[in-house]
Amino acid sequence: LPDFYTFERKLICSHRDFDKFLAALSAGRKCAIVSGLNPSGMLHLGHKVVFDTCLYFQQKYRVPVFVPLSDDESYVAGKVPDLKSARENAFKLAKQLLAYGFDPKLTKFIIDSECPQIFLFAMELSKKLTLSEVKATFGYTDSTNPGLAFYTCVQAAHVLLPFKLGYEAVLVPIGPDEDAHLRLCRDIAARAGYPKPAVTHTSFLPRIDGRKMSKSKGNAIFLLEDEQTIRRKIRRAFSGGAPTAELHRKFGGDPEKDVACIYLTKLFLSDQQAAQLIADYRSGKLLSSDLKKMLTKYVLELSRKLKKNLENVELTNSLFSAFDLFNSN
Amino acid sequence: LPDFYTFERKLICSHRDFDKFLAALSAGRKCAIVSGLNPSGMLHLGHKVVFDTCLYFQQKYRVPVFVPLSDDESYVAGKVPDLKSARENAFKLAKQLLAYGFDPKLTKFIIDSECPQIFLFAMELSKKLTLSEVKATFGYTDSTNPGLAFYTCVQAAHVLLPFKLGYEAVLVPIGPDEDAHLRLCRDIAARAGYPKPAVTHTSFLPRIDGRKMSKSKGNAIFLLEDEQTIRRKIRRAFSGGAPTAELHRKFGGDPEKDVACIYLTKLFLSDQQAAQLIADYRSGKLLSSDLKKMLTKYVLELSRKLKKNLENVELTNSLFSAFDLFNSN
Repeated sequence: LPDFYTFERKLICSHRDFDKFLAALSAGRKCAIVSGLNPSGMLHLGHKVVFDTCLYFQQKYRVPVFVPLSDDESYVAGKVPDLKSARENAFKLAKQLLAYGFDPKLTKFIIDSECPQIFLFAMELSKKLTLSEVKATFGYTDSTNPGLAFYTCVQAAHVLLPFKLGYEAVLVPIGPDEDAHLRLCRDIAARAGYPKPAVTHTSFLPRIDGRKMSKSKGNAIFLLEDEQTIRRKIRRAFSGGAPTAELHRKFGGDPEKDVACIYLTKLFLSDQQAAQLIADYRSGKLLSSDLKKMLTKYVLELSRKLKKNLENVELTNSLFSAFDLFNSN
Repeated sequence: LPDFYTFERKLICSHRDFDKFLAALSAGRKCAIVSGLNPSGMLHLGHKVVFDTCLYFQQKYRVPVFVPLSDDESYVAGKVPDLKSARENAFKLAKQLLAYGFDPKLTKFIIDSECPQIFLFAMELSKKLTLSEVKATFGYTDSTNPGLAFYTCVQAAHVLLPFKLGYEAVLVPIGPDEDAHLRLCRDIAARAGYPKPAVTHTSFLPRIDGRKMSKSKGNAIFLLEDEQTIRRKIRRAFSGGAPTAELHRKFGGDPEKDVACIYLTKLFLSDQQAAQLIADYRSGKLLSSDLKKMLTKYVLELSRKLKKNLENVELTNSLFSAFDLFNSN
């Protein structure tokens, strides 16, 4: 496994063919990453694992990252009121990713409304698929709109685009909830004569209240939120501490329940710092409020860096340039 | 009805809301025509009725004509081996239509692979439709590929595009075999808050052997074929004449069966000439071979004009320019 925190800390917890991707990478073959974002939302702390993993490969191995920002899917699935706002948000997200650290020379954003070739490639791939497979995979019925059914093909087109452009191995880091899409996509790949894309699954970080972090539920920590909101959200985070400070000093806290502790140890601290923090929290030496203060510091640092970088980011055409599918094989 | 041969000779034989389109036209409202061509084939004599009808409105009323050339559909429906050839053929057809007489200032070609907005508009419209409607209308099953199911939405997007761009009335001249598409499309229009497009149905001209003319069966007279082939095809056309010239002189021919007679009287001659021709053929004064010679003259004239014009036709970007759907309502 790569010597990177997302792997070492099991934030990436399972995979399909990741070993083959790594083998291709070390054999010097042409590799790419596809990592999509739904432009119905904003960057939040939960994105950090996938982004950092992408950046690890981009920085260490110069692997280009394709980022589908599916404005049309957001719309057709009813996540945004209209296409225009989905599209605007897609451009915003592109800027934010560059501010996060994605290398403009090694990053391609695929905004469907900019890129007719994606639809044509999707039409091509649709011939390798039937409606019944789409229905079985996603629980769609005959009452589903045909756009949503076709979207399966668009998504496959996003994932398989690098193969179409001549890449030899593709990695798609996803959350476990997207696995059904990718399984179908791997089947389509095989039928269309492409290699199967490799997949890694990210384990969910708990959200602020101790459950799954999700942008749509509004309980995530958004990286571009104002500092007051970030501070307030962390202050209210689910705690693993004892009911009072006195009891906490005496009996200690539960590092596996304390959200601030989990974020700090999984996302921000070194292994050594993390072990010390857990020990000190468990012993009662550190209060939950101490951990929240620490976490606030790290998150604000990340947020400030992002906000500052954002001022200097400019989108250029080459980041979105349409791919010439007609002259590639 | 308009004072034009396609209407007067019942080559356009039925309609939906054509009266409303004509009313909108005479009220000076913003009208457009949508007349698509499948880029799996070439122009043939059977296209003349729809083209001339489009040109009538374009020349007399300055009505813009939108011409969807659905390269993707040709491909996804398996009519062409690959997208590239469909796309190339679409550009060829665009040139041929301009050579035929379409006014470049009043004609927009919609080649899907040039126009991502069409797919986005299709996604938008897909929300007004269910898979079961698509299946019921076209006899698709769960074994159908999702691209073909989605294509219903793409086609609706082609037809409703002028409404999206602010036009108030749309006419779609089609063959009777396309009526199912258009009926569904009119339903979608109503659900999406657009007026229903008007439709006219063209009656089929018999093909050379006396049956329906069709590009896919290779029995049509293609307008850009070499002269020898055109001559040979007409020479072999289904005849309404008697078995021998002698019998023909005596008993006459059947003008309703003779393909050359039908083409001449429906497509090329004036009313007066047509009446005379029919009388002379019925009486036996004119032989089938005489009619074939006449028809050959007219078809070659049309073909030569087309070939000559084609040399001077140039495609410009504005003929295909993407439509800014995001800034239209």
